[in-house]
Amino acid sequence: MKLYHCAGARSFRPLWALEEMGLDYDFELMPFPPRFAREGYLEINPLGTVPAFTDGDLLMTESSAICHYLGTKYGPTDLVVGIDEPEYGRYLNFLHMSDATLTFPQTIVLRYTMLEAAERRLPQAAADYAQWFASRLRGAMKLVGPEYACAGRFTMADIAVGYAIKLAGLIGLQDAVPENAAAYFARISDRDGYRRAMAREEGRSIGT
Amino acid sequence: MKLYHCAGARSFRPLWALEEMGLDYDFELMPFPPRFAREGYLEINPLGTVPAFTDGDLLMTESSAICHYLGTKYGPTDLVVGIDEPEYGRYLNFLHMSDATLTFPQTIVLRYTMLEAAERRLPQAAADYAQWFASRLRGAMKLVGPEYACAGRFTMADIAVGYAIKLAGLIGLQDAVPENAAAYFARISDRDGYRRAMAREEGRSIGT
Repeated sequence: MKLYHCAGARSFRPLWALEEMGLDYDFELMPFPPRFAREGYLEINPLGTVPAFTDGDLLMTESSAICHYLGTKYGPTDLVVGIDEPEYGRYLNFLHMSDATLTFPQTIVLRYTMLEAAERRLPQAAADYAQWFASRLRGAMKLVGPEYACAGRFTMADIAVGYAIKLAGLIGLQDAVPENAAAYFARISDRDGYRRAMAREEGRSIGT
Repeated sequence: MKLYHCAGARSFRPLWALEEMGLDYDFELMPFPPRFAREGYLEINPLGTVPAFTDGDLLMTESSAICHYLGTKYGPTDLVVGIDEPEYGRYLNFLHMSDATLTFPQTIVLRYTMLEAAERRLPQAAADYAQWFASRLRGAMKLVGPEYACAGRFTMADIAVGYAIKLAGLIGLQDAVPENAAAYFARISDRDGYRRAMAREEGRSIGT
């Protein structure tokens, strides 16, 4: 298995999942955006997006899907909610919501406030999708359980949703994060798995 | 089970899945956007998005997640690729890619060309994300198998990806759909399940 990662990017979800599970994997930290900055990246991932994850012949590109894949394929693990558990449907829903509903609007804000050249920046689009993100995050927090997203324990759903809250802090969207979401993220990221993932991203090693 | 649907919206994915599986379900066709046009919708779905799907106490809001939920919960069915099949990872990846990578950019085009008032339209943002969609769809088609998305048969992954191609035709993005994607969609939608879903959306009944 190999994970191609950029600091702060959505590939942090599978990085966190890999560290939670204690799996062995190869790791490459790339400059952003890798489709221009990492030679040959389009041959690895034709979409050009981050992450790319390979497992033998398999290529995966969708961060929350990789988390679920790891948990179901290399489990059993409590990080996955099983089909026979009552919160299975809510678990699947959080996995998908985390990216399609929460992260994508954030990437629009990032693009039009920071990545585009000055003359192509669009304050209205950035403001529209900052508001969209804030509204969807408030809605998502109504669906999150009292401590964890679902099933009364830490799961891949927390990694998936938690990363969207983490990203808000990285791209200037702190004001869109309500207090309950900030408290939720502080709670779920206070874990060795998260700290190991951060250390890996930063090229540090942490003792055990 | 109940599906809340708007004509042409992402809720078409679970509608198609429900018809492919021949399940019994309640159905409500709503005006768009339901958070303003359907009284009480925010009490059903706090996100205000489409679809909403309920199964007892469970609420789901993410169209591709609902398809996988139905197939795994109410199967067994060949519409799901199982954990032990070689293409399981590719299957999960297509489910997620269909919404986060393909459909979301389309909604930005729709917003800034059609839904917003004239003075708030943003041709640059619409053009940027039309191009993004076109590029990601070309990339996705490199990953799609010769006949179906994966596993050599029609699955929920085809419903998920196929809907994104269908939506392109509904919102003026035909030019972003390459010939191989149009041919793929024509092939996977030439099915009784698809025709029944269209009939349900249009309030027609079709004989058997």
